[in-house]
Amino acid sequence: MKKVALGIDIGGTNTKFGFVDKEGKVYCESSISTTKPGEKFEDYLNNLYNEVQQSLESAPEKLEIIGVGVGAPNGNYFNGCIEFAANLPWKGIIRAAQLMSDKWGVPAYLTNDANAAAIGEMLFGTAKGMKDFIVITLGTGVGSGIVVNGEVVYGHDGFAGELGHVVVEPGDRECNCGRKGCLEVYCSANGIRRTVFELLCKKNDNSVLRDISFNELTSAKIYEAAIEGDHIAREAFRYTGKMLGRALADFVTFSSPEAIILFGGLAKSGELIRKPTEESMEEHMLFCFKNKVKVLLSSMDEGNVAVMGSAALAWHEMEKKNK
Amino acid sequence: MKKVALGIDIGGTNTKFGFVDKEGKVYCESSISTTKPGEKFEDYLNNLYNEVQQSLESAPEKLEIIGVGVGAPNGNYFNGCIEFAANLPWKGIIRAAQLMSDKWGVPAYLTNDANAAAIGEMLFGTAKGMKDFIVITLGTGVGSGIVVNGEVVYGHDGFAGELGHVVVEPGDRECNCGRKGCLEVYCSANGIRRTVFELLCKKNDNSVLRDISFNELTSAKIYEAAIEGDHIAREAFRYTGKMLGRALADFVTFSSPEAIILFGGLAKSGELIRKPTEESMEEHMLFCFKNKVKVLLSSMDEGNVAVMGSAALAWHEMEKKNK
Repeated sequence: MKKVALGIDIGGTNTKFGFVDKEGKVYCESSISTTKPGEKFEDYLNNLYNEVQQSLESAPEKLEIIGVGVGAPNGNYFNGCIEFAANLPWKGIIRAAQLMSDKWGVPAYLTNDANAAAIGEMLFGTAKGMKDFIVITLGTGVGSGIVVNGEVVYGHDGFAGELGHVVVEPGDRECNCGRKGCLEVYCSANGIRRTVFELLCKKNDNSVLRDISFNELTSAKIYEAAIEGDHIAREAFRYTGKMLGRALADFVTFSSPEAIILFGGLAKSGELIRKPTEESMEEHMLFCFKNKVKVLLSSMDEGNVAVMGSAALAWHEMEKKNK
Repeated sequence: MKKVALGIDIGGTNTKFGFVDKEGKVYCESSISTTKPGEKFEDYLNNLYNEVQQSLESAPEKLEIIGVGVGAPNGNYFNGCIEFAANLPWKGIIRAAQLMSDKWGVPAYLTNDANAAAIGEMLFGTAKGMKDFIVITLGTGVGSGIVVNGEVVYGHDGFAGELGHVVVEPGDRECNCGRKGCLEVYCSANGIRRTVFELLCKKNDNSVLRDISFNELTSAKIYEAAIEGDHIAREAFRYTGKMLGRALADFVTFSSPEAIILFGGLAKSGELIRKPTEESMEEHMLFCFKNKVKVLLSSMDEGNVAVMGSAALAWHEMEKKNK
């Protein structure tokens, strides 16, 4: 029987799950809906359990679940609870890890999605073999998972690693967090959209982006325009990289990582975002860190990275216990 | 026989040493000159060894050195070397820990002064019992020692924790590091002096500080003026706290510490610096960290904190080995 960890990624709309062996091979990925009107967590969990068991039975080889790893918004590693997650249907504090451990009769571990992604990178991805690195997730928002000496930095309350909310331009663009000038308002998918609109205001260049409304504009459309050579779109990527690189130079003074790994929707733009980010980071770097820190793109398939990261958490924790 | 660690603090001018037991009691502190023209490290070490042995013999009770801890500028924890320290007389890379271990026949450990201070706070000072905290040293420059989950953050090369060089005002005041707007140019002893001169330019208030030249002005004089109610001096402390607090709010998003401990010359100004720092930190803090992180003053006596920190490093490392 092949030993696997059950990786569960709880998102606002869907919950993905899959079985991942110690080498990072993923078996039978599937998903269920996270949100059903009025459903309690216990009902959701019963539903999830049934789906998982069905997948297990239909797997091409015999699998044995030896641990469960869960990635969830507002997931607190220390107590295994999902705490007041605004984008999930269950209110208050959910003892998710404990309930899942009871359900499957194996240890269960929980953290937030960005930390799970970092552990996934360390065990199965670009950070394989590294002990000090930072994963920056460039998605709808900007998230981060920080690894120091082979362990995720959780902080005293489990909420460390909110680097999307480091303030890079005090008093500038409004952020959803209620403050102004956070990294997130420049370097997320929404941030680059805002940058495009600032550039459309400031510059006179023709651009295909002048025909698209704010609400219709996506980072994918900006990417396509940039590939076609659109000046505004290319400048938007340069500016995004400049802002991100400046922030990364500050992050380096904190934990002196071997590498910073970019992940998520915007990171799929590849060199368009990586190159200006690296250049800006080097330009702003303190002398003793210059030319030491790599800016890398995640090599993990975004389709199943969340599930792999969650499963990686379980493998990592079980390995620590066996030491 | 009382078991003690030999704590050695290598400064640009003097080297302090002392014996510290596991409870933090310091025996027979003394010092030698670090710099003698043309002296090699080996000669310096022989000299230090003789002084230490004399102290040991004159101690009021029998002491047994079971480990050596060293704090030094540019001290690299990983290899135990002092690397290219601009303010020390020895050039290149000095294998200080190895040479000291050979000399005393016990394990020796080395790190930089700010990290040693952090371990000292954790074992013997304000951070006793804490596992996640940051020590900010407000001296000639601004240094930092970051502790995550009970361990100092060294980073992949041993140079983590350069928070004095986070850029807080891009393009503003020149820093010794060659860049502009680093935290250090606002919140060090030199930084508050620069702030006084900015205020003397901008404001019309009378001030005793108008009679003192830049080179003659010290943070102690600014402190004295502030205590006497001098408006410029008080405003300089408020501004220093404001800048520091803003930076601390960003540091919290990184490692979510239980407390931030202020240490060094400026921290001796007490509430004059602590209060505006805390207020500014709370004002700029991301909502999920508000009212959770304490700003504390170091309770350690600055006279021997460096020696205690160095000895604490030795105790901490020996304890890890015995686990």
